[in-house]
Amino acid sequence: MALFITFEGGEGSGKSFQSKGLYRRLDKLKIPALLTHEPGGTALGEKLTRLLKWARDTGISPLTELLMFNASRAQLVAEVIQPGLKAGKVVICDRYTDSTVAYQHYGRGLDLKLVKTINEGATGGLAPSLIILLDVPVDVGLTRKENKKPDRFEQEGLAFHRRVREGYLKMAAADPKRWLVIDACQPRDKIAGIIWGRASRLLLKKSKTEVK
Amino acid sequence: MALFITFEGGEGSGKSFQSKGLYRRLDKLKIPALLTHEPGGTALGEKLTRLLKWARDTGISPLTELLMFNASRAQLVAEVIQPGLKAGKVVICDRYTDSTVAYQHYGRGLDLKLVKTINEGATGGLAPSLIILLDVPVDVGLTRKENKKPDRFEQEGLAFHRRVREGYLKMAAADPKRWLVIDACQPRDKIAGIIWGRASRLLLKKSKTEVK
Repeated sequence: MALFITFEGGEGSGKSFQSKGLYRRLDKLKIPALLTHEPGGTALGEKLTRLLKWARDTGISPLTELLMFNASRAQLVAEVIQPGLKAGKVVICDRYTDSTVAYQHYGRGLDLKLVKTINEGATGGLAPSLIILLDVPVDVGLTRKENKKPDRFEQEGLAFHRRVREGYLKMAAADPKRWLVIDACQPRDKIAGIIWGRASRLLLKKSKTEVK
Repeated sequence: MALFITFEGGEGSGKSFQSKGLYRRLDKLKIPALLTHEPGGTALGEKLTRLLKWARDTGISPLTELLMFNASRAQLVAEVIQPGLKAGKVVICDRYTDSTVAYQHYGRGLDLKLVKTINEGATGGLAPSLIILLDVPVDVGLTRKENKKPDRFEQEGLAFHRRVREGYLKMAAADPKRWLVIDACQPRDKIAGIIWGRASRLLLKKSKTEVK
């Protein structure tokens, strides 16, 4: 029952927690599933991510950054996502192409067409069936992350993160069938319930189609 | 007198020797010039190149490779080539976008439109005014390199290198105004003389235009 689901959202929105939760739920039900994340998710991708962090301190062009994220993504698609889907698994990915549109176009101001073209090239057009956006006001999200060491994106300032959030909401509004927007200020269990409601409906629908 | 010149060709064609020679000639004449190379050419680019070599042993998707080459290229354009041209220098680059078309499209079979799109995205469309192709029969070039440790591209086999060579010749034939094809089996001094003939004419033409 191959299905591709991604989690999106700003800093401190609870993506990691909820994506793990969905994976565990599927696993308990013996539904073949796979959990991965971006950036990274492969040995090469993790090395690229470490190199990105190094490069941010020494100076990196936004375009180089876009291409490195997508190099990591191309490897993840080839090594993890595509094989998982081919094996009939539910593939859950914590961040995917929409993160790049949100952070690098809406946040950093890179040309939208360029970002979409490079994303499309790296993934061969592979898009998720469901995108779960955990929406949280910027100050709430950043406060949640306060105790962790911030990375470059987190240090960008409130205005940057507000543009990212608005970008996400704009993308979701333009494609409401694929995007599920959840107010991530709600209790974790309630959020998990909303996610499960939508994901299980989609799985049921898919299994019916496949039986037919 | 900003001018962008690239050197292209297969393994053992003498690109490095001739690009250095052209740079030295300009330098002796006190013409501001800059010599760089691909892949690499920046601190980040060299790290990406080392990572590429590591990844080739562990398994890398051709698309990831394409994106990593272009990440390195985007950084080279931003950090070295564009600033050099803005400072009015003759920028000489040993390999550039056409290497990617030759090796990854003609050699490895990646879609031409995809390769061109990613190249274009990484460079913002910055193209050389003169492309010097040092053309050498595949067996001659590889024999010249025999004593050096071969990298992945060199190990690809004769058929691969023949496709690369034919690809180069096809590109050159399609755009003869920008490409200068030189039989690289000739003596080095003769090759250097041909290169200097064309480069100096271009510089002269450019200086006249600029005086006007």
